[in-house]
Amino acid sequence: MGGPEIERLIGLLAKLPGFGPRSGRRAALRMLQEPEARMMPLANALIEAARAVRPCSLCGNLDSRDPCAICADPHRDHSLVCVVEGVGDLWALERASVYRGLYHVLGGTLSPLAGIGPQDLSVGPLLARVEGGGVGEVILALGATVDGATTAHWLTDRLKPLGVPVTRVAQGVPIGGALDVLDDGTLAAALRARRPS
Amino acid sequence: MGGPEIERLIGLLAKLPGFGPRSGRRAALRMLQEPEARMMPLANALIEAARAVRPCSLCGNLDSRDPCAICADPHRDHSLVCVVEGVGDLWALERASVYRGLYHVLGGTLSPLAGIGPQDLSVGPLLARVEGGGVGEVILALGATVDGATTAHWLTDRLKPLGVPVTRVAQGVPIGGALDVLDDGTLAAALRARRPS
Repeated sequence: MGGPEIERLIGLLAKLPGFGPRSGRRAALRMLQEPEARMMPLANALIEAARAVRPCSLCGNLDSRDPCAICADPHRDHSLVCVVEGVGDLWALERASVYRGLYHVLGGTLSPLAGIGPQDLSVGPLLARVEGGGVGEVILALGATVDGATTAHWLTDRLKPLGVPVTRVAQGVPIGGALDVLDDGTLAAALRARRPS
Repeated sequence: MGGPEIERLIGLLAKLPGFGPRSGRRAALRMLQEPEARMMPLANALIEAARAVRPCSLCGNLDSRDPCAICADPHRDHSLVCVVEGVGDLWALERASVYRGLYHVLGGTLSPLAGIGPQDLSVGPLLARVEGGGVGEVILALGATVDGATTAHWLTDRLKPLGVPVTRVAQGVPIGGALDVLDDGTLAAALRARRPS
């Protein structure tokens, strides 16, 4: 049905999150009808992003600069560090435009059942950042899941002895929900109503 | 939020059919976390498909060979020509594995309201194929839409004087439906129950 090139393209498109074989075929067909306008720009964007984008060595955000644009921004409050599970959560908070501090991307949550311990997350670098000084508050913006709450509790126990105030986003995060699917208003309310952890 | 490379990638992914800004971000994030495993293979598949795939000069199917694998297959019945609106319809019929003749991709349907006339479709090449001889039946497999029915009627009027039997897929195509979203059983039934046009 059109040769191995088409089959391979459909197979890879079908693996995109939210896609399956049918939507993969549909996307492939749409693109094959305008290869120069649709396929080469996407191919070039993929190559360029794969070449340029790296995790920020300070916070773990994905950026083509290192330190990332957020860590390097002198207009942001460098004494505030907001801990998030993943870059998707960071993106969600940035879209809400309510937070002007820095971030720390944990890379997941503690999950004894899934065998994910502190050594699998960016915990050491977070503690080192706080020990290095200059951090006036750590905001834990983790999902309101069992693993998120466990992780927040565990991190609070590690951070408190370092003498830094630790807060948690609170009001507005629905129980069982992940942070990166919330609307901007809910995210803003949760940030404003943060309470001591 | 991560530099122009990420923004550009999200923007292009968001334009895929079925995708929007949210799913574009989700796909970009998933790929950026495994650039070598996810981004480069897709980039290469896009480049390779854009380079290799062309419309078949005989039937209009998309393939990396010309004539396409279907037109070049000696085991198929070269006296049968099935006229479809687009390559997606051809793919749907091939997945149903019930048709062993050749195809002719029309490239759309006549649509006076949208200003689409015979000169915008592959009508001339179809008539030339039939006039060239060797075609024992033309099967019109167009969608059961107003434009599809109009086109089938118009094509029948042009093909009949050439002395070739013209049939239409009939039973099982739901009114108002497009051909490439049907299940294989319905497609098979519609092919079997084709009637003189």
